[in-house]
Amino acid sequence: MENKFDHFDTVDFNENKDALRIIDQTLLPTELIMLDMKDEESIWDAIHTLKVRGAPAIGVAAAIGIAILTLPKADAELEEFKSEFTRIKKYLETSRPTAVNLFWALDRMERVVDNYKGESSKQLSDLLIEEARVIREEDIEVCKKIGEYGLELLKDGYGILTHCNAGSLATIKYGTATAPMYLAHEKGMNIHVFADETRPLLQGARLTAYELNAAGIDTTLICDNMSQTVMRQGKVDIIFVGCDRVAVNGDACNKIGTSMVALSAKRHNIPFYVCAPTSTIDFSIESGEEIVIEERKPEEITDMWYAEKMAPAGIKVYNPAFDVTDADLITGIITEYGIIYPPFKEGILKLKEEHNL
Amino acid sequence: MENKFDHFDTVDFNENKDALRIIDQTLLPTELIMLDMKDEESIWDAIHTLKVRGAPAIGVAAAIGIAILTLPKADAELEEFKSEFTRIKKYLETSRPTAVNLFWALDRMERVVDNYKGESSKQLSDLLIEEARVIREEDIEVCKKIGEYGLELLKDGYGILTHCNAGSLATIKYGTATAPMYLAHEKGMNIHVFADETRPLLQGARLTAYELNAAGIDTTLICDNMSQTVMRQGKVDIIFVGCDRVAVNGDACNKIGTSMVALSAKRHNIPFYVCAPTSTIDFSIESGEEIVIEERKPEEITDMWYAEKMAPAGIKVYNPAFDVTDADLITGIITEYGIIYPPFKEGILKLKEEHNL
Repeated sequence: MENKFDHFDTVDFNENKDALRIIDQTLLPTELIMLDMKDEESIWDAIHTLKVRGAPAIGVAAAIGIAILTLPKADAELEEFKSEFTRIKKYLETSRPTAVNLFWALDRMERVVDNYKGESSKQLSDLLIEEARVIREEDIEVCKKIGEYGLELLKDGYGILTHCNAGSLATIKYGTATAPMYLAHEKGMNIHVFADETRPLLQGARLTAYELNAAGIDTTLICDNMSQTVMRQGKVDIIFVGCDRVAVNGDACNKIGTSMVALSAKRHNIPFYVCAPTSTIDFSIESGEEIVIEERKPEEITDMWYAEKMAPAGIKVYNPAFDVTDADLITGIITEYGIIYPPFKEGILKLKEEHNL
Repeated sequence: MENKFDHFDTVDFNENKDALRIIDQTLLPTELIMLDMKDEESIWDAIHTLKVRGAPAIGVAAAIGIAILTLPKADAELEEFKSEFTRIKKYLETSRPTAVNLFWALDRMERVVDNYKGESSKQLSDLLIEEARVIREEDIEVCKKIGEYGLELLKDGYGILTHCNAGSLATIKYGTATAPMYLAHEKGMNIHVFADETRPLLQGARLTAYELNAAGIDTTLICDNMSQTVMRQGKVDIIFVGCDRVAVNGDACNKIGTSMVALSAKRHNIPFYVCAPTSTIDFSIESGEEIVIEERKPEEITDMWYAEKMAPAGIKVYNPAFDVTDADLITGIITEYGIIYPPFKEGILKLKEEHNL
């Protein structure tokens, strides 16, 4: 408990490696509770009800989850172990069917099963636990690399603005958009962060402001509609945001409101960087126009957490979860392999070739 | 009760002309309660606690208020009547010291007292009641004129976006930004309005969405960070916003977030109009740079109406109440005397000359 930053090992094994341990993010920012889970209903429910959220964190939770949930069959016949694996995989896939990383991680775990040539359930179980550990370590490494490239853009005294939570709570450690901030803070640099609250679900207020503040980083919470004002006032030197999906032309899909931050940044000549692990680049999508925006339920806007109604009964609501930031508003895309600058298509395709993506 | 729109006679005399009648806006959107007030503490409190809010509505409430509160002295000696007027004026001025219209309306009432040459308290009291009535009627007329000029910009089927509440609840009737919408609706035109919720106090969700919906206008509530997305999707044909202050160069100070709407409108080639009674033009201010932005308390962002905390305890908060929209982002400024187009300075000074402002 000495190093506050260590609290945010968002998803991990427990000490005995027989349970999935997560921070229950639905209780933040009021309570910091760790949950150890060994049964499939609890793990399914944790993903489904957003106790664990953020694309990378979901993937790692699913990987550790299936490694843990198949443990009881480590003494069974290999066929029984494999069929249990398949059953649990299908079950966990229903916990959040739109989460790309959930499927990505479970598929990767399945390849371990498919590629196993031995006869021992115990050995295969060990391989699954190892693979989950590797997936987790890789996520930390990717975030750290993004942080290192982002750090090169920072100077002492910088004001930084971010939107939503692409923080350590969305990943395992460091986060993506927050990684440069954590590394700067570790180096003792003075930085000041403005966190957009991010309506309707307030991930910026509840999660980003929480984790940065807990790590000792000087953080100011603002409403989404205030970001242009702090930019105009000269308080912001650089912007880092995460992203859900990057198209080949560099258009970036991220939490609703991101594109308005980018537009304000452009007007005020403030560099706007998208922090994107290469896993979020969708090579099948030419531009942001092809991305279908998820719509969520009206109650998130009209009722969420409120004691009293905040909008008239029966009012029509439109609640898009994401928006697309046009590539021309983006200064650079920070990946674990370096920063891509315009023209983005050229840079993205070069990266694909160089790293076999 | 047949014509829903009539509910929103926000500020008026009661039928007997012996009480100030207002809608208690702090109870919206859950309850629509009219308050009749005859004593000075109630009226002071109504202004102080935002039961009545919106610059024009505050002015009218103060004018009617002082006319009502001096009524009991209508049988007294003139000197006693006048000194009671002065006492109450000073008292009401403390109810909301930053509200320009409060002082403007009370000063105008005082001129009636100063200019009175007769000897009868009763007669002077009648003149005050008449002046309050005229101030109220003038506000309705100004809003209606703005509505008529705005209406000329609308076509059947238009999508309209607005921010905050420059609606009939902020004035007496019609509102400013909403006046074109009400007149279009009265004419049977099909319009569709997107109302930004307007964090932190949610005037858009609680008031604008409420009053437009109650009037039968097709209204959709969105979060502030969604306005660019609905513009990008082609759902918005024109934008009307109110304003608190216009500088001589056309820069407009309005509720925080307005400038981000304007910037998005510019990017998507959507006309952006500021609805501004000439009383909001500040001829002493050359540009928006000179406007000092009021900062409000952090709890509005971290705690407002919430059952649970929505941000970590002790988090730093920046909460500017207004922002400045640069003149180059504004298509036109709609006043009661017509629409001013760029170059704004020329148009504004011409208006000043023509109408002795």
